[in-house]
Amino acid sequence: MNTIFADRMKLTRKSFIREILKVTEQPEIISFAGGLPNPGLFPVEAIAAASAKVLSAEGKNVLQYSSTEGYLPLREFIAERYHRKSGLEIEPDEILITNGSQQSLDLIGKVFLNKGDKVIIEQPGYLGAIQAFSIFEPEFRSVTLFDDGIDTALLESVLNEGTAKLFYTVPTFQNPSGITYSREKRNALSNILKKHNVVCVEDNAYGELRFAGEELPTIRSFSDETILMGSFSKIIAPGLRMGWICAGKEIMNKLLVAKQAADLHSNYLSQRIIYQYLQDNDIDEHILNIKDAYGKRRDLMVKMMDEHFPDEIEYTQPEGGMFIWVTLPEGISSIDLFDLAVKENVAFVPGSPFYTEDRIGDNTFRLNFSNSDFEQIEEGIKKLAGCLERLTANR
Amino acid sequence: MNTIFADRMKLTRKSFIREILKVTEQPEIISFAGGLPNPGLFPVEAIAAASAKVLSAEGKNVLQYSSTEGYLPLREFIAERYHRKSGLEIEPDEILITNGSQQSLDLIGKVFLNKGDKVIIEQPGYLGAIQAFSIFEPEFRSVTLFDDGIDTALLESVLNEGTAKLFYTVPTFQNPSGITYSREKRNALSNILKKHNVVCVEDNAYGELRFAGEELPTIRSFSDETILMGSFSKIIAPGLRMGWICAGKEIMNKLLVAKQAADLHSNYLSQRIIYQYLQDNDIDEHILNIKDAYGKRRDLMVKMMDEHFPDEIEYTQPEGGMFIWVTLPEGISSIDLFDLAVKENVAFVPGSPFYTEDRIGDNTFRLNFSNSDFEQIEEGIKKLAGCLERLTANR
Repeated sequence: MNTIFADRMKLTRKSFIREILKVTEQPEIISFAGGLPNPGLFPVEAIAAASAKVLSAEGKNVLQYSSTEGYLPLREFIAERYHRKSGLEIEPDEILITNGSQQSLDLIGKVFLNKGDKVIIEQPGYLGAIQAFSIFEPEFRSVTLFDDGIDTALLESVLNEGTAKLFYTVPTFQNPSGITYSREKRNALSNILKKHNVVCVEDNAYGELRFAGEELPTIRSFSDETILMGSFSKIIAPGLRMGWICAGKEIMNKLLVAKQAADLHSNYLSQRIIYQYLQDNDIDEHILNIKDAYGKRRDLMVKMMDEHFPDEIEYTQPEGGMFIWVTLPEGISSIDLFDLAVKENVAFVPGSPFYTEDRIGDNTFRLNFSNSDFEQIEEGIKKLAGCLERLTANR
Repeated sequence: MNTIFADRMKLTRKSFIREILKVTEQPEIISFAGGLPNPGLFPVEAIAAASAKVLSAEGKNVLQYSSTEGYLPLREFIAERYHRKSGLEIEPDEILITNGSQQSLDLIGKVFLNKGDKVIIEQPGYLGAIQAFSIFEPEFRSVTLFDDGIDTALLESVLNEGTAKLFYTVPTFQNPSGITYSREKRNALSNILKKHNVVCVEDNAYGELRFAGEELPTIRSFSDETILMGSFSKIIAPGLRMGWICAGKEIMNKLLVAKQAADLHSNYLSQRIIYQYLQDNDIDEHILNIKDAYGKRRDLMVKMMDEHFPDEIEYTQPEGGMFIWVTLPEGISSIDLFDLAVKENVAFVPGSPFYTEDRIGDNTFRLNFSNSDFEQIEEGIKKLAGCLERLTANR
């Protein structure tokens, strides 16, 4: 019966991370594995108030079919906020409301990718993007991430080998590495992509969550041909599945056709709830609380790692976001570490699934710090350090 | 710049109906054009109560990321209801919660369709399905609908010409025609598709809205290899974008991969609101109210058409759903009628977009009766009759 399915389904597998998450869902596990925002910071009461308000004032309307583009005042809010926070000039008509960033990626893949088209991704790279684009059967090329962003020399040489359709990047507090591109790298990247006529897809899901260092301009601010993705998942709540795509009008027209074919429009009640929440609350103040909470967790996790991890182990020190990336000495496998750690009820995500090539990245892993409390971080990192000691001593 | 887009975008156009709807949104227009459920019947207060309840009891949980499959108790409710209402044996694991039927179609297209695969649709057929499947670049074959369902002889001959991947049908109160397949046609269709190894996609978005005649078994009940689609849009509210796909385990595994890549999971808050609504209210009683309201509207519309339309004009008398299909004498164009009617502030959808072949169906059009009140139906049909008189007299 397998022959009845489309070829594209051969290439697309269930997310390894989501499968790991099922294993690590038991309450006794200290999990640094997921990519979950901290639910203790969800504005539950304010969302409940917003929901009550829109349903009482405009119930019939907010439960009816609505426009493919998304609720106009919400798009105006997003456009105005870009202007206020970072001086970007984006029209509300250049914004499409989606069911979160994953749908944004699906729509972008649909609109651009023919089978065999080249997509360049970061190495390590975001699994959700690889999964979304895989459906459209592209060829992936990966380019190494340095501490200050993509390896631009390697990128140039990859592009000189042959043209690519898309370059996908999470330049700020990247998932999985926590790395942030420097201002110079953003500018250089933007110039390279322009020269080679490659569309840049800038996923800024974590960009608002900076708890250290200086704000940096988006890649979109260096080139208005960039497709910029945003999300309410990390700054309000992910269960509402609400994100957006900013793109120029020609691309937007194609995205609208794809969105209409994909699900007519995004959940209208949730769009109205989010807009009402944004009207009645100070989102920037709320984000300050999230940044404060996540910053303290990162500080504690890094402090514990500094104190307890063997010296030869390297890790990123992210200035925002939700993840730390750990690199073990060559030859030490994070899968072996995972097996040891799970026995002690500690979990994380081994690094190899974040690489599209086989057999690399086996000595890396991702730690999430947003969704643990201080005690869990102290206890979990100590236990992980113990496992690492044993593993490195065994060599 | 057009060359940067994927080939699939050339074939997929903006929905003609949604473009027409924009024209007919002015309040002075009596619109029989849309496919909207009547918002006066949305259970606004009960939805507000359900929302307040889930947010107060489990706010952090219902706002967090959730499972790709959908909320298990909701899937159990759907499975149990199929059993109770129509004796179908469907496991909760054979149900995937989607963002409404349009996403169900997108996921089915993704999972099955290679470029050039054949998809058989009804003629006239549901535009949303044509649009969703077009993204995957299939070849469409259309088979004429008779008053009791598909032309099975023509279907056989089309299948003898060459194999097809999917057969898409709305067998009960079809959109656009209002036609319902007889029991015999359902059985015969199921046998033909089995013989030719064609997957049947049964879209049952309107099946619960029967206000006349006897209940008929789903095609799924003749063959458990049928993919059955359901939706809360017509029985609760469409703004929540919530539907489902029932499929056997092998197909479901592929659908889950596609759903994960498409948007991780459906809006979790809305899933929980709908489940809470279903727990605290009698959905069958609510559906009785909808059927009563729609039945009265259909009766009035048909009565007005009987009294005022020229004799030579034919129309369906649907036993449920939301649409009546009108056939004008050959040579009379429903686009000409539309132009006349809009000047008198009455709108409907001309029939030709419901045909995949060009230059047929020009003498047909669709009337929606669910979303008008009695006065609008009386006045609108009288005006339409006046336009028809003028148009047929002009010949």
